[in-house]
Amino acid sequence: MSGVIALITDFSSRDWYSGVMKGVILGINPGARVVDISHGIDRGDIVGAGFALKSSYRFLPEGTVFVVVVDPGVGTNRRILLSEYAGYRFLAPDNGILDFALGECGTDKARSVENREYWLETVSKTFHGRDIFAPVAAHLSMGVEPERFGPACKICVRLKLSAPKIEGGDIMEAEVINVDSFGNLITNIGEDARIIKRTGGAVIRIAGREIKGLSSSYTDVPEGELLAIYGSSGYMEISVNGGSAAEKLGVGRGAKFSVSQK
Amino acid sequence: MSGVIALITDFSSRDWYSGVMKGVILGINPGARVVDISHGIDRGDIVGAGFALKSSYRFLPEGTVFVVVVDPGVGTNRRILLSEYAGYRFLAPDNGILDFALGECGTDKARSVENREYWLETVSKTFHGRDIFAPVAAHLSMGVEPERFGPACKICVRLKLSAPKIEGGDIMEAEVINVDSFGNLITNIGEDARIIKRTGGAVIRIAGREIKGLSSSYTDVPEGELLAIYGSSGYMEISVNGGSAAEKLGVGRGAKFSVSQK
Amino acid sequence: MSGVIALITDFSSRDWYSGVMKGVILGINPGARVVDISHGIDRGDIVGAGFALKSSYRFLPEGTVFVVVVDPGVGTNRRILLSEYAGYRFLAPDNGILDFALGECGTDKARSVENREYWLETVSKTFHGRDIFAPVAAHLSMGVEPERFGPACKICVRLKLSAPKIEGGDIMEAEVINVDSFGNLITNIGEDARIIKRTGGAVIRIAGREIKGLSSSYTDVPEGELLAIYGSSGYMEISVNGGSAAEKLGVGRGAKFSVSQK
Repeated sequence: MSGVIALITDFSSRDWYSGVMKGVILGINPGARVVDISHGIDRGDIVGAGFALKSSYRFLPEGTVFVVVVDPGVGTNRRILLSEYAGYRFLAPDNGILDFALGECGTDKARSVENREYWLETVSKTFHGRDIFAPVAAHLSMGVEPERFGPACKICVRLKLSAPKIEGGDIMEAEVINVDSFGNLITNIGEDARIIKRTGGAVIRIAGREIKGLSSSYTDVPEGELLAIYGSSGYMEISVNGGSAAEKLGVGRGAKFSVSQK
Repeated sequence: MSGVIALITDFSSRDWYSGVMKGVILGINPGARVVDISHGIDRGDIVGAGFALKSSYRFLPEGTVFVVVVDPGVGTNRRILLSEYAGYRFLAPDNGILDFALGECGTDKARSVENREYWLETVSKTFHGRDIFAPVAAHLSMGVEPERFGPACKICVRLKLSAPKIEGGDIMEAEVINVDSFGNLITNIGEDARIIKRTGGAVIRIAGREIKGLSSSYTDVPEGELLAIYGSSGYMEISVNGGSAAEKLGVGRGAKFSVSQK
Repeated sequence: MSGVIALITDFSSRDWYSGVMKGVILGINPGARVVDISHGIDRGDIVGAGFALKSSYRFLPEGTVFVVVVDPGVGTNRRILLSEYAGYRFLAPDNGILDFALGECGTDKARSVENREYWLETVSKTFHGRDIFAPVAAHLSMGVEPERFGPACKICVRLKLSAPKIEGGDIMEAEVINVDSFGNLITNIGEDARIIKRTGGAVIRIAGREIKGLSSSYTDVPEGELLAIYGSSGYMEISVNGGSAAEKLGVGRGAKFSVSQK
């Protein structure tokens, strides 16, 4: 156990919601160290939350409890999942976040959080982050065993990452899966990007523009110009040196593009 | 003493102001654990700060010191209040924040923070958060007794929550008292909301629209539709499933509405 | 050693980047206490980052490690500096941030961070905050000596604060060097502001408007009116009572103005 609890929510940092979750956590485990991964996920953006989790979790200490509250179904009978993977523990609504971030590894051994013994006494209709997620996370961080929180559940909501369509050496159709605050377009091209680099001369075609080859830093191209780079989340990203690719191209998540070897 | 210090300010998280407060706190009490409730209160919004405090404080561990710095009168001779209530301690300018959040319980036994022994040596004209609030909070969190910080003060600035006007079973006039980042309209209907539910069939009329009855989750209505729900702060809220009620209705804090039993 | 690590970045708090840095830090030094000074520096704004550092560092506990990641040159061969000053340690790209904040004191004894032993094993092209800055800061906070991280480097990038041009008792040309979230215009008039006050009757001319004398609180002038005040960063600021001077005057960083003694 690391005593670290990491939070990902769409609560914004304007409201008191994330602070209240920390208060509940510290009331139960005074030694907990809470790390804000993000409270700025777009409202209800399950893919964005999943991607933030996917990009961050393995950099936190082993034993960290991740709490992901992007939960449009709060107050309905949607399940809350508790999952274990790679030495970490994950709490999230059963809406696809964990499947997106971890794949089946994250949901195969999931439990359904149902034991009210570890919840706040009064549970509101609209804020399970405070009333269920936070106290459960605090107890987990103190060493309460996952099986105490509820029964195993077999089938969880699926929400897989789309895969690029490859034919020969070409990627016929790839997709932008996330956009960060810098306007970097994070794509679903993972290890394949290395193939592109090795063969050299790849041409990326997106929104009527062409980008040639992969760069190794933003400043490889003049300021304001487009580039492709193997980004820190393990995916190829389309960026602008000193600017926003999302703005320059006028595209966002879901945008399709191709990569061909000439 | 919990060693927890909770901050509510209008400093935004873009500037260095909240970080500097934490630095001052840790310099005095290295064991303090600082919880950011919000630094995104609208500039000078005393009601918003009071509401954030009101909605959050009882979820923090007993002994927490709350520091609320929304302080348009900084540099004038407005008092800084130190109050004790329900096992918590509160620091805020004497501008109504504590009265709004806690009522007379919060201000009846207040002290005026005047003992410069616990302030930074140099006090600026514009940043008492750093120079007075932070060091006083740090000393409080280490067990210095409230009476050390200044004399009791009898009359504090009042800023009460408005009450809905009720006639028979109907609410003739209620009011939106806060809007959160989701665009939920938080109203001044507290326990009364339960009355509405019991009698059933209540009709809420706001901005030319009608909402029938109370929902128990956002998804009780189709996406994009209005609903009323008993929210996590203990008040009835008007919301939109998957959207913003503030945007849909074009109203904000202060908007009046009615609830009738048919 | 205080175990405190203070972060200044342009990563925004919407993305996962700052949270990941904290995760890396806690994985190396579980006892570190991380303070967010700001993650809202404008993208690539070296002057803004330098100013945030300059305005905050001396309020953090002695021994604090400051990590400033505003790094448009990430992935190039720009150096990463480790500097010691006034009992603090500073990590920043060699792009002028430290010179702006600390002057030559901050860069004269700088080292070039080159020893990969203290980096993450895999270093990405775009996120040295995670892969280099965070682990180096964590090791520094545990007492690893600065000389272990790389060799001394003599010449660093310079980026000095501009000085006001003074003739007789008048300031012929001064400059706005930063704008905070309140819209306060922070100027490059430091100690000189006191001179203005002593002689009284100074007239500040900016954007076609005149401001007479220095105020001692925002409320010295009617709501919505301009004032000049000696601010918390040690510089004269131009503000609006209850409003934004940047908006009212339509000016920002770099705006020139004058102060004359009548």
